[in-house]
Amino acid sequence: MKTKANYTMLFDFYELTMGNGYFQTPMKDKICYFDIFFRSVPDGGGFAIAAGLEQVIDYIENLHFDDEDIAYLRSKGLFQEEFLEYLRTFRFTGDLWAVPEGTPIFPGEPILTVRAKAIEAQFIETFLLLTLNHQSLIATKTSRIVRAAKGRGVSEFGSRRAQGPDAAILGARASYLAGAGGTACAMADQIYGSPATGTMAHSWVQMFPDEYTAFETYCKLYPHSATLLVDTYNVLRSGVPNAIKAFQTVLAPLGIENCAIRIDSGDLTYLSKKARKMLDDAGLTKCKIVASNSLDEYIIRDLIQQGAQIDAFGVGERLITSKSEPVFGGVYKLAAIEEDGHIVPKIKVSENPAKITTPHFKKVYRLFAPDTGKAFADYIAVYDEIIDGRPLELFDPQATWKSQTITRYVAKPLLAPIFEGGKRVYETPTLEEARAYCAKQVDALWDEVKRFENPHNYYVDLSPKLWQIKQELLKEQGHR
Amino acid sequence: MKTKANYTMLFDFYELTMGNGYFQTPMKDKICYFDIFFRSVPDGGGFAIAAGLEQVIDYIENLHFDDEDIAYLRSKGLFQEEFLEYLRTFRFTGDLWAVPEGTPIFPGEPILTVRAKAIEAQFIETFLLLTLNHQSLIATKTSRIVRAAKGRGVSEFGSRRAQGPDAAILGARASYLAGAGGTACAMADQIYGSPATGTMAHSWVQMFPDEYTAFETYCKLYPHSATLLVDTYNVLRSGVPNAIKAFQTVLAPLGIENCAIRIDSGDLTYLSKKARKMLDDAGLTKCKIVASNSLDEYIIRDLIQQGAQIDAFGVGERLITSKSEPVFGGVYKLAAIEEDGHIVPKIKVSENPAKITTPHFKKVYRLFAPDTGKAFADYIAVYDEIIDGRPLELFDPQATWKSQTITRYVAKPLLAPIFEGGKRVYETPTLEEARAYCAKQVDALWDEVKRFENPHNYYVDLSPKLWQIKQELLKEQGHR
Repeated sequence: MKTKANYTMLFDFYELTMGNGYFQTPMKDKICYFDIFFRSVPDGGGFAIAAGLEQVIDYIENLHFDDEDIAYLRSKGLFQEEFLEYLRTFRFTGDLWAVPEGTPIFPGEPILTVRAKAIEAQFIETFLLLTLNHQSLIATKTSRIVRAAKGRGVSEFGSRRAQGPDAAILGARASYLAGAGGTACAMADQIYGSPATGTMAHSWVQMFPDEYTAFETYCKLYPHSATLLVDTYNVLRSGVPNAIKAFQTVLAPLGIENCAIRIDSGDLTYLSKKARKMLDDAGLTKCKIVASNSLDEYIIRDLIQQGAQIDAFGVGERLITSKSEPVFGGVYKLAAIEEDGHIVPKIKVSENPAKITTPHFKKVYRLFAPDTGKAFADYIAVYDEIIDGRPLELFDPQATWKSQTITRYVAKPLLAPIFEGGKRVYETPTLEEARAYCAKQVDALWDEVKRFENPHNYYVDLSPKLWQIKQELLKEQGHR
Repeated sequence: MKTKANYTMLFDFYELTMGNGYFQTPMKDKICYFDIFFRSVPDGGGFAIAAGLEQVIDYIENLHFDDEDIAYLRSKGLFQEEFLEYLRTFRFTGDLWAVPEGTPIFPGEPILTVRAKAIEAQFIETFLLLTLNHQSLIATKTSRIVRAAKGRGVSEFGSRRAQGPDAAILGARASYLAGAGGTACAMADQIYGSPATGTMAHSWVQMFPDEYTAFETYCKLYPHSATLLVDTYNVLRSGVPNAIKAFQTVLAPLGIENCAIRIDSGDLTYLSKKARKMLDDAGLTKCKIVASNSLDEYIIRDLIQQGAQIDAFGVGERLITSKSEPVFGGVYKLAAIEEDGHIVPKIKVSENPAKITTPHFKKVYRLFAPDTGKAFADYIAVYDEIIDGRPLELFDPQATWKSQTITRYVAKPLLAPIFEGGKRVYETPTLEEARAYCAKQVDALWDEVKRFENPHNYYVDLSPKLWQIKQELLKEQGHR
């Protein structure tokens, strides 16, 4: 694997002005609990897909300030020498829980919880948010696109429009995790194993004296993976006929039937139907049609509804930037602190009820129906509540009169222990394993949750005990 | 400076399937010309800001495949051994011209031109596009936000919502280039020198037994840079009164008058006006008010119009992702090839006229009015045309009857030579120099071009000779 960059210095500056402050007060060793959660699903979807944990783990394991970093920090003239000295041996020594990559996640529930000394817990905020926000954004978008394609292949083609090198590479990784079949990005393949493929650009066709020669040359070079780009001049008058001729001239004598054309402009429905007919008439029934050009889940859905004869989609800028909603709004909020060994829940109030945090050190369970295996609710409890199959009272945390008691359920903890006392206790799955897990977990959601528009609001409920604590803290804050 | 990542492997896979193909044909050493240009300004603006050239130069200078890269490529089973061997010593040996960073740029004009052997010219496509697209996007957005702030400070706060680590770091760089006063991102400061600052999060306030103690502690730690976050509980009832008390108790005895409060939620106009009055009444007339919370150029303009008493803005996700339009659509198109030492122009046609390329090896001049110093048109000529002050015919390339002959102008070449025969011939300016250059060049645009909505369409015209060549090629293609 390629050397990883060290991102210790990728923090919002206030993490260290606060850190230097805590260092000089009794807060230094105060144990804090922070949660990461998000407030709404991009594109109005019913769920998001968690991604980026592997990079979070790498980051935490590699956390250290080198001499150059210390010198830079000293140059700011803000930090105590004792603090800079302390940073020399700074490591993450806390605990961390997180949902595995590929897990469907819902607004308002912790997807990662940190328990650590104030400075450590605060310091890692920026990188954790940035990484989970970015990769979850791309995984969530990809999941929508893959579901729109209804079993047809989806390849990620967006590197050239990505927001920087990492966005290309890690975006390709996140999209593969969430179900894309591959990427155009070689570096994502090399580092993370999201398979890279690619054939030709328009410039290849333009470089040759004529389109047919360009196609023939390519088929000779790559007889087993010839995907010919047919829209450099005119798809139906020139591109498809020349492709057919090249396939028949070069591939047929070799007995190769697997080949493809790609259409990158124009009316994809019309052109793909016409091209399909021309290919079939020429006996090239196994020739696939790939389409690209500013695709996303909505356009793909429309193309399929219109009967477009497309076997696979290349999706670029609208996937790699999640163009329709390019921000995943995960936040990192203080949930509790320890005082003399007791956990004291903390709340952040807001005039906007959606922005009020859920206090305390919590555990989250996903509840599955034993008969169907489908997930029907997530249940957030105080860390020490026991969820062991006894009847659970589920109620809407905003409209508490909507309640029910459930007796038949399988409760699975949603977050796994990742670090304990600074030591990694989690075996990171391979990208392939995470991808398979993701597909399975998305499968365990009801179709109603998977709708693109106005999906069913999946229940994320609080235990009565946790709800009670939240109400008490709210009341307290109101009286402040 | 921190070690740079080597991004040789960050290419769309087809760059090398084509490269391997060219290698096995006479195309191998064919000299090609490629242009980068873009087709529309994000957010409907009148111009964009070019950024990212420094990273392009670093990339090209560091281009090389190591053993691990070759092994990876071999494992794909697609490439000739001779080609893999050739890649071992692969370098960029061509010429490259580009607009300096910070230059205002317009749709349809080359902002970068490459002259190189086919494989080399093709190979660098992905990284060049990705880098210029990303940084130009963020620079363009920042320029809008900075102009909306009308001289008030703008700081980039978006790392946690950036699309990956590079998007945070390079985005902060691009935003500083385009006029932001600084960033929250420490690593962008350390590597690129875009100054990082930061004070406190809500969690700092929550960690202390009460808000006043949190403020007092912070003022004692950082008396010269105390910006107190006043919206953890209630801005007017608690935050501002506690901040005033802390400033008066800690800073006043030290004779320090420079301080600030930050408001991160609620009605920023209302709260800032009330807070200003409270601060003034307490004699803290030098205390600044900083505002943040989902800001962009539109909200900032509204706040100022409403008389908000805000001295500086912290801008996060909407800047660092260019949320309202997160893609900069730069493309890389073949413009010419050399045949027996002659330059043969190439065109890419399309049913969409905006997608038709301008062929040939070109030079671009920015024309300034000698009296005002303002730029009034860009003029694209064939590379060997001489623009030496003689009268120029300017005409709309779409509506050619709209024409005028100009006699008084100063023509400055827009693109600078960056590489000649693979050797860098360009002295990269410092980020500060590029920032100053950017401000000056934006200043040289008419206000009409700088409007947020319906800006004046700045002229980007072709020379009569170039226009003629383009028409002839179009005709030829039409007959194909």
